[in-house]
Amino acid sequence: MTDLVRIVLVDPSHPGNIGSVARAMKNMALADLVLVRPRSFPHPEAVALAAGADDVLAAARVVDTVAAALGDCAFVAGATSRPRNFTWEFATPREAAAQVAALPAAARAALLFGSERYGLANEDLQHCNVLVRIPANPAYCSLNLAMSVQLLAYELYLAREAPAGHVQYEAPPAEGAELEHLYAHLAEVLREIEFDDRTGYLMERLRRLFNRSRLDRNEVNILRGILSAVSGRRRATRGPGA
Amino acid sequence: MTDLVRIVLVDPSHPGNIGSVARAMKNMALADLVLVRPRSFPHPEAVALAAGADDVLAAARVVDTVAAALGDCAFVAGATSRPRNFTWEFATPREAAAQVAALPAAARAALLFGSERYGLANEDLQHCNVLVRIPANPAYCSLNLAMSVQLLAYELYLAREAPAGHVQYEAPPAEGAELEHLYAHLAEVLREIEFDDRTGYLMERLRRLFNRSRLDRNEVNILRGILSAVSGRRRATRGPGA
Repeated sequence: MTDLVRIVLVDPSHPGNIGSVARAMKNMALADLVLVRPRSFPHPEAVALAAGADDVLAAARVVDTVAAALGDCAFVAGATSRPRNFTWEFATPREAAAQVAALPAAARAALLFGSERYGLANEDLQHCNVLVRIPANPAYCSLNLAMSVQLLAYELYLAREAPAGHVQYEAPPAEGAELEHLYAHLAEVLREIEFDDRTGYLMERLRRLFNRSRLDRNEVNILRGILSAVSGRRRATRGPGA
Repeated sequence: MTDLVRIVLVDPSHPGNIGSVARAMKNMALADLVLVRPRSFPHPEAVALAAGADDVLAAARVVDTVAAALGDCAFVAGATSRPRNFTWEFATPREAAAQVAALPAAARAALLFGSERYGLANEDLQHCNVLVRIPANPAYCSLNLAMSVQLLAYELYLAREAPAGHVQYEAPPAEGAELEHLYAHLAEVLREIEFDDRTGYLMERLRRLFNRSRLDRNEVNILRGILSAVSGRRRATRGPGA
């Protein structure tokens, strides 16, 4: 399971923090680190702060988009300390760790962390099944990036030793790339039926709604089948040449 | 209670770590820091790493002996990652936090941390009621001093406040009758587009899928709007009388 939990850092600006994150991860038996657009990496300061966890750093992958970091992930928890609008499931680190530990054996999970300065952008949240807020002093909530990773990784380490309740999946949980295809298909059909998106945020809302539900692969296929049926019927009804 | 839990660092050698400890403490609403024989304190690096927690640093007291740091403490938990001889009660961070939280209202507790290099000396342990070992990767147990403080302070914060996870709703959660209307509408549109329900369990699946997501009222309205658009378009395309 250790290699099935990924830590993803989006836009990390300080290489020292990347090193500290690697150290925090290895202490909690995590090894899969993905960096989205790091400002400076590789960097000697990262190596210095990784202490003995330079193997985690050496194996880290660099990608250009959050979607690329999550393409094979079936569950994504996004760390955020900011208040957020919209309907969101907020979990404590302990609850999120329990959710990860409850995934089927082969499912990959990711913990997503934003930049030191701004945290996760709203568009990054669109990939998350659940948001995690670390309980902290309301008068001073200023956890360092590596500290946040440490706390979540610690809860994960504990949760794996003592797994609690679980979601029973009929089919494997859908992975990021499958979900992206579903959402693209949905957007296409909504355009086709000329659904009026008054706010401009329709797809974001729908993503949040479906992400909360943690779709399995069968469910994605059923939803795509329905979408195809909606387009197909329209075309069939119109008839050729319409 | 916040001011009744003290963090004691014995022989800390890096001033940066003292700053990071202050930051970790303040994030978890702790304010009482005592330093036993710090090598360099005060120090600009401590201030730099304390970020906004310089008030904790400024209030820190420096003493010469562990006994002086603990003179008014009713309960002392010592952090150690090394195996120890002799009879000792080892607690997890969570158990130690629960023990602290269970103390009588006016009792002061301390968490005792050793030097970065050697940890607590055997003579320091003589002041402890319980030893705390942070669960970690047996193959790489190398937690930074400030990380250790962070994890214990976090458990303590949770033991005292423990806000549980929750779903943040943008609109009131949808009620049963609204969901039944949604599901009836969905079933109707699926019939209309003649979606092939091979298994006969399509609606049950879709209900489970949406129920897991805990829809709010806006989301129900959006989904019903989409369903209406699907039917409406079909009717419009067919034309009147079709």
